Amino acid sequence: MSNTSPPAAASGLSVNLLARPMVERLLADADALGLQVRRDDTGAHIVDAGIEARGSVAAGLQIGEICMGGLGHVNLRSGGSAEGWPTWLDVRSSQPVLACLGSQYAGWSLSATKEETGGKKFFSLGSGPARALAVKEKLFAELGYRDHAQCGVLVLEVDRAPPKIVIDKLLRDCGLAAEALTLILTPTTSLAGTTQVVARVLEVALHKAHELGFALGNIVDGAGTAPLPSPSADGVEAMGRTNDAILYGGRVHLTVRGDDDAARGLARALPSRNSRDHGRSFAEIFKEVEYDFYKIDGALFAPAEVWVSNVDSGNTWHGGAPDMALLQRLWLQEA
Amino acid sequence: MSNTSPPAAASGLSVNLLARPMVERLLADADALGLQVRRDDTGAHIVDAGIEARGSVAAGLQIGEICMGGLGHVNLRSGGSAEGWPTWLDVRSSQPVLACLGSQYAGWSLSATKEETGGKKFFSLGSGPARALAVKEKLFAELGYRDHAQCGVLVLEVDRAPPKIVIDKLLRDCGLAAEALTLILTPTTSLAGTTQVVARVLEVALHKAHELGFALGNIVDGAGTAPLPSPSADGVEAMGRTNDAILYGGRVHLTVRGDDDAARGLARALPSRNSRDHGRSFAEIFKEVEYDFYKIDGALFAPAEVWVSNVDSGNTWHGGAPDMALLQRLWLQEA
Amino acid sequence: MSNTSPPAAASGLSVNLLARPMVERLLADADALGLQVRRDDTGAHIVDAGIEARGSVAAGLQIGEICMGGLGHVNLRSGGSAEGWPTWLDVRSSQPVLACLGSQYAGWSLSATKEETGGKKFFSLGSGPARALAVKEKLFAELGYRDHAQCGVLVLEVDRAPPKIVIDKLLRDCGLAAEALTLILTPTTSLAGTTQVVARVLEVALHKAHELGFALGNIVDGAGTAPLPSPSADGVEAMGRTNDAILYGGRVHLTVRGDDDAARGLARALPSRNSRDHGRSFAEIFKEVEYDFYKIDGALFAPAEVWVSNVDSGNTWHGGAPDMALLQRLWLQEA
Repeated sequence: MSNTSPPAAASGLSVNLLARPMVERLLADADALGLQVRRDDTGAHIVDAGIEARGSVAAGLQIGEICMGGLGHVNLRSGGSAEGWPTWLDVRSSQPVLACLGSQYAGWSLSATKEETGGKKFFSLGSGPARALAVKEKLFAELGYRDHAQCGVLVLEVDRAPPKIVIDKLLRDCGLAAEALTLILTPTTSLAGTTQVVARVLEVALHKAHELGFALGNIVDGAGTAPLPSPSADGVEAMGRTNDAILYGGRVHLTVRGDDDAARGLARALPSRNSRDHGRSFAEIFKEVEYDFYKIDGALFAPAEVWVSNVDSGNTWHGGAPDMALLQRLWLQEA
Repeated sequence: MSNTSPPAAASGLSVNLLARPMVERLLADADALGLQVRRDDTGAHIVDAGIEARGSVAAGLQIGEICMGGLGHVNLRSGGSAEGWPTWLDVRSSQPVLACLGSQYAGWSLSATKEETGGKKFFSLGSGPARALAVKEKLFAELGYRDHAQCGVLVLEVDRAPPKIVIDKLLRDCGLAAEALTLILTPTTSLAGTTQVVARVLEVALHKAHELGFALGNIVDGAGTAPLPSPSADGVEAMGRTNDAILYGGRVHLTVRGDDDAARGLARALPSRNSRDHGRSFAEIFKEVEYDFYKIDGALFAPAEVWVSNVDSGNTWHGGAPDMALLQRLWLQEA
Repeated sequence: MSNTSPPAAASGLSVNLLARPMVERLLADADALGLQVRRDDTGAHIVDAGIEARGSVAAGLQIGEICMGGLGHVNLRSGGSAEGWPTWLDVRSSQPVLACLGSQYAGWSLSATKEETGGKKFFSLGSGPARALAVKEKLFAELGYRDHAQCGVLVLEVDRAPPKIVIDKLLRDCGLAAEALTLILTPTTSLAGTTQVVARVLEVALHKAHELGFALGNIVDGAGTAPLPSPSADGVEAMGRTNDAILYGGRVHLTVRGDDDAARGLARALPSRNSRDHGRSFAEIFKEVEYDFYKIDGALFAPAEVWVSNVDSGNTWHGGAPDMALLQRLWLQEA
């Protein structure tokens, strides 16, 4: 039976409160994790996870779990000798819609013009729990979810701290006192940045399922894995790698309810090979469209391989396949 | 050297006390885990993990660890691309006899007639720590183990709460105040139910080792893995899948003491392929024997592949093999 | 860019303080882990993890993390069906130099003559956090690291407790009150001993990188895996297995900074197959050199397979390969 009410409507869960102890642990372990923590002029906590600070893979794993609102697990696992890459992230959530779309998805557009900042213009897509306080995206109406916590945490893939005007807007939109906000800054070129983006392998599947019109309320569990590449010092290359890790190496298992036709259709339509752009590196495609993200075929943003199990029938379908040879060509030099 | 004293005789460990913090965490995280918690008329805590409540894989993982009396670990792991199934459970214990046979094994028969319930008859096999309070099974004399904790937790694979007469008996047998008892209800047709049963892959090996007459006191460590199938809404089918996951996908590594003949013999005799019924799905076999569980060859209940290491000699033997092609035929549809 | 200052100079981290909560958990869970804990005449805590006590794999995993000064993670993972061995350890650290060389490396020579002990002579190589209190090895000057904690923990691969004269020296060198010292005794022939040595797979890579002259300050992250063999009751055989697990089954992924030539050179030179002794079991080689450890080619002590990623360029190189067939010949009997 399909569930037609908003998928997270009945939830009394607060992604910001659930993430709070994880944020406190991140701050407490800042030195071991290679992070620099400071308060900015407003009083908000700013966690530098890869700009001046070195950051780390370990920090990226914890930031990945924070970004899922405390409702997901991110583990590093060594690949088997036949897997073609040594280091993998395993991600799982038993609240995948809330963890991935209600929290982890980078969907909150934060920007300021040159005039507003008095310097360089600023743009970033905020991800993580605080999105659910501000609910500025129409996705939240579909989810039927809003968090009302008195604290919040947001992750920004940036190489500098947001200007004061953006932080002020953010505090206003979230209804937070500055002291109650933590901003985590993770450039994609950093270890923590690359790690927390690859940890989105399940979120990417959820997002495309949503794009395909699959009823989100029928997705009840999710788990997945993706290879963790080295970051690149080049921004486009670094972003390309995190995308390629998911598009060509990601494997996701979704558990759904509802009718078998919808589940089978999801397994068929979800994998990245349904895209006309499949088979080339993200960086190559991105350059071809002259760095206009929105010209890239949206169907590309998906894991390489997808398994969909329907608990109502017990049936499972499977589609797509990883292309580790492609990733090795992109990531690995002759030794 | 064989150890001939009861295997758990010297243990001062309390499986119920060790599980207690895990039970408290389960209750505290009930919303995130999709559980419904209530007190029944007696005052006992009833955790619905898949009847009215949706439950979850995450709940099943935690229930699996509770069921092992806090002496085991259950992790979800993504399978490698050559493993033939995307989602696996890893289980381990360094107290395998106590965790698996003293606690996790579903060996306590709880029943009530129509006359006693004033409604439907009730039957369930209780598993988990509270068995060791009641010690109603002769297995406990062999183990030389009894727990004396003032709190207890029991797992029941049922689709309705036990009638009052069963709970009253249970409290009496365990010597517990109602407030100190937690009952966790996990229908096999649910996500939590399927998960916590597949988490028995090590227990199934221990149980068959016991059936084969292997000295339990000589089993010192155990680890194993099994693929996690989708539950089925059909009870027989759901039970079949959890069994097939272990019989055809389960791989267990036991570490023993004693002489090499016994260790080698265990590696030979333990795998499921020693059974005349090996090669067909559990559901098919179960229907053939007209749903009379006790007509099934007991030798079938074993992992597909077994490794036995003898710490006294340093030798390891290996027997059996998984049949992932069979599981794919049973579980996977053409996409 | 190479970093030429001492690699751990700026660290304010205390490996002994970071390990302290883990030591307390080990003591609290002693019964479940099969450990015997006592205070010796000086008042120091002595943890027997495999002499009179049985110990366990679970204890070995925790001791492995203690030995890494709270800056590493050690997990047991089931191998895929194609991996050739059922049970593996995954190890990772985002402070690999400090965790592995500043703490885990067995580099502190502790000895006493017959005359000093009034009985048998004593020799052991101490490993773990307390090394960084005593800083008796010239490695610490290179690291630019010294811990000043008021508590300490040391791991000794021995089959009897150190004599009083050794403990007195140890307390003096560490500047500790006896009550603040914990000594963990793990014979290699025990489950905990074998486990905590195999957990050195990353440390072995770090140590050889150092021997090769690679700038330690440029190693920023590390992860690896190795198969966990059965211990042997024979000391030489047991030591041989833990070495073989790493030399022929170990796979390590190092993340470095600096120039590509150095990174590529490391991937080429690091794997064990660069040694003239590669291809034979450690025990066989050890007997051939008449048990003189220092006659063995130092180049042998390395993981079988190495991946090196350079974050400054984004490039990855790969060298070596595991030889699971050799390990199966050494470890596995015909069933």
